[in-house]
Amino acid sequence: MENIKNYIEENKDRFLEELFELIRIPSISSIKEHKDDMMKAAEKWKEIILAAGGDKAEVMPTDGNPVVYGEKIIDENAPTVLVYGHYDVMPVDPVDLWNTTPFEPVIKDGKIWARGADDDKGQAFMHAKAFEFMVKNNNLPCNVKFMIEGEEEIGSPSLGKFCDENKELLKADIILVSDTGMIAEDIPSITTGLRGLSYWEVEVTGPNRDLHSGLFGGAVANPINILAKMIAQTTDDDGKILIPGFYDDVIECSDAERELMAKAPFNEEEYKKAIDVKELAGEKGYTTGERTGIRPSFDVCGIWGGYTGEGAKTVLPSKASAKISTRLVPNQDNVKISEMFKEYFESIAPASVKVKVTPLHGGQGYVCPIDIPAYEAAEKALQKVYGKQAVPVRSGGSIPIISTFEEKLGLKSVLMGFGLESDAIHSPNENYPLNQFFNGIESLPWFYKYFAEM
Amino acid sequence: MENIKNYIEENKDRFLEELFELIRIPSISSIKEHKDDMMKAAEKWKEIILAAGGDKAEVMPTDGNPVVYGEKIIDENAPTVLVYGHYDVMPVDPVDLWNTTPFEPVIKDGKIWARGADDDKGQAFMHAKAFEFMVKNNNLPCNVKFMIEGEEEIGSPSLGKFCDENKELLKADIILVSDTGMIAEDIPSITTGLRGLSYWEVEVTGPNRDLHSGLFGGAVANPINILAKMIAQTTDDDGKILIPGFYDDVIECSDAERELMAKAPFNEEEYKKAIDVKELAGEKGYTTGERTGIRPSFDVCGIWGGYTGEGAKTVLPSKASAKISTRLVPNQDNVKISEMFKEYFESIAPASVKVKVTPLHGGQGYVCPIDIPAYEAAEKALQKVYGKQAVPVRSGGSIPIISTFEEKLGLKSVLMGFGLESDAIHSPNENYPLNQFFNGIESLPWFYKYFAEM
Repeated sequence: MENIKNYIEENKDRFLEELFELIRIPSISSIKEHKDDMMKAAEKWKEIILAAGGDKAEVMPTDGNPVVYGEKIIDENAPTVLVYGHYDVMPVDPVDLWNTTPFEPVIKDGKIWARGADDDKGQAFMHAKAFEFMVKNNNLPCNVKFMIEGEEEIGSPSLGKFCDENKELLKADIILVSDTGMIAEDIPSITTGLRGLSYWEVEVTGPNRDLHSGLFGGAVANPINILAKMIAQTTDDDGKILIPGFYDDVIECSDAERELMAKAPFNEEEYKKAIDVKELAGEKGYTTGERTGIRPSFDVCGIWGGYTGEGAKTVLPSKASAKISTRLVPNQDNVKISEMFKEYFESIAPASVKVKVTPLHGGQGYVCPIDIPAYEAAEKALQKVYGKQAVPVRSGGSIPIISTFEEKLGLKSVLMGFGLESDAIHSPNENYPLNQFFNGIESLPWFYKYFAEM
Repeated sequence: MENIKNYIEENKDRFLEELFELIRIPSISSIKEHKDDMMKAAEKWKEIILAAGGDKAEVMPTDGNPVVYGEKIIDENAPTVLVYGHYDVMPVDPVDLWNTTPFEPVIKDGKIWARGADDDKGQAFMHAKAFEFMVKNNNLPCNVKFMIEGEEEIGSPSLGKFCDENKELLKADIILVSDTGMIAEDIPSITTGLRGLSYWEVEVTGPNRDLHSGLFGGAVANPINILAKMIAQTTDDDGKILIPGFYDDVIECSDAERELMAKAPFNEEEYKKAIDVKELAGEKGYTTGERTGIRPSFDVCGIWGGYTGEGAKTVLPSKASAKISTRLVPNQDNVKISEMFKEYFESIAPASVKVKVTPLHGGQGYVCPIDIPAYEAAEKALQKVYGKQAVPVRSGGSIPIISTFEEKLGLKSVLMGFGLESDAIHSPNENYPLNQFFNGIESLPWFYKYFAEM
């Protein structure tokens, strides 16, 4: 296994050339004109899997862009790793902010510069090359399945159904994903959690038309005043959410994990400076990282009502509306939370107004426990290559497909990502450091080894 | 004096014909194309005053439309009544909703139908005809001055300066105005109060740009959440305004006046039905009429921030804004209140946001005490003609020029209006019942008589 370093050294130019062939296909999933490119990228992935040693690979149709499935089954009793990645990329606009041509990869300053260099062509391709190494060196310890989709950047609309229809094919012990980042090149980390989401539009109606604020003001409930009070009543001064039952299913993070997470470097002054705020604010008793990582949040994303033009118009408006969201932590069910909020928000409305709560969107949170074998295998693999214990990181964002996998396939995912904040994914000048690319290829075989041994 | 009834009976057709000549001039102050009509209407008023018996009358220039000033001084020691009215009218759009031609008055169903029939050509003209009667019958007991402006419907922008520059000319004991209404044809009332106003725009800024609500939500203050809390903290559950010192200058209305006001008929069920609300809401301990009439109010007139488009966008916005107003009662100083609010609103903002409070507009409230001679004279005059004691009514609205008169000229105004709710002023099909027109002409000489006797 120690050969992996040499294998990379000997094959690095070929690896890059192969990756570049993939990158050169402008597979932008959100732009219809690139429909043919989606198919080309899928076919390229089929080639990549077969060339790397897959027993089979096929481009499987879905309601949208196809999924590339490939596998190598070494032993029915061996553990099976399902590798998830995506071949689609984000658009490149504004193209004039790029220093290079987005789909013509360039190596400069130790980085690959191109759309998809990291997200997710570069990262997913590391899995193909790690797999190739293990096949060629006869030390592949697990069965491997690849599921590379073409709609991640547009919210994976077809993949849930694909999982439903291919449960048997996708049977595995763990899903391994490189589509996230680590804290820094010298601070390895693993994303262990993603938050869920519930999102509503609320509408508060007072009088049936806008009224003269002089003639009626003081005697008729003002829906903006009321909506403000209702929003205010949903969190307390300690940043706790007051919806009854809201925290019932929140699993407190273990002290051990909190201690590990606390090792992630965090400079509060720099964080505040970057967004230009004097003070941070959030739930009492938790750090900034915990507030976004392991605790739910309540944010009004938008609000509107009454007169919003120039100058002063004295009106007691008929309606006020808001877009309201909560980020949920794993084990909180977004459907249950959605109903709780609706019930609460309607219950705190005074009889002087009517309230309508419309759920708009929802998704489950996801957590990867740090004591499952696959997490430990990933941690050991990174320790081996980076020489440091990886920090578990709970991301505040949501990647709905990861919780969909858990729901549809009953499988946990290990988010072993090698991207960096500076990779500018989704932005002009996306890049991926060669070090991270090669370290990723080096780390992955160790994951397979340790995972098989557990 | 009892002759007035006969005088009206004998001259009614002429009165109407003269009024119609005034109405036929389309003196819309807000539309530039009518500039010439403003001058024509002013000249017509000069004629009207002279024809009615004025010693002199002149069209006096201002920075805007001219003011018509006229007078008859009978005795330097006699009390002086300054009659205020306006010759400008509102636009007539949407003109297709009119059943008649707006500037061609028609009598139908006992009413005059035309723009300006009530507001304020019809009402101001009653003063000219009452004056004519007293002059012709040699029973004018007071000096009379007329000040008829041409910019009331656009907020009287030139009249404050005109008052400043003509203090001596406008010297009087009371201002008499017919530019308001009474409760019903059989329920005489006098408007005794108008509320003042303070109006601000507030802006709450959190982070320097819209943030991802997943990555930052829970750790960075959301300016909409904060603005909602700040608005919520400005009134309590009993409808009291929590700005420190806000009520310091509020003069409690006497029980006697509250009792009189309570005689105004009020059907809560009909009121609620008309605006389609299940419950009314306002300051504890006060009736609906009192809440709009003698108590201040706090209304958010508009609010906006974050994402307000279709569907769900997960954003922690950078800014949230609101237009906020308070209606003030007499003796509350709008400038002082404006500063109080600013100070309070800034003080309750947490350090996690920046707050900007911009005063947009302000005006003083006005009250006519019901125990001053001029009020009592008006009350007795209406008693004489309507056979009932007039109800004092505090209007929730604001007519800034009335408080300007008090400030600039040191004079109270008696708002002896004869309009009715059904007169549709400012709307299509404005009308003025002949009964109210003639009752007005009949009532006014009694006012002069009683006022002179006091």
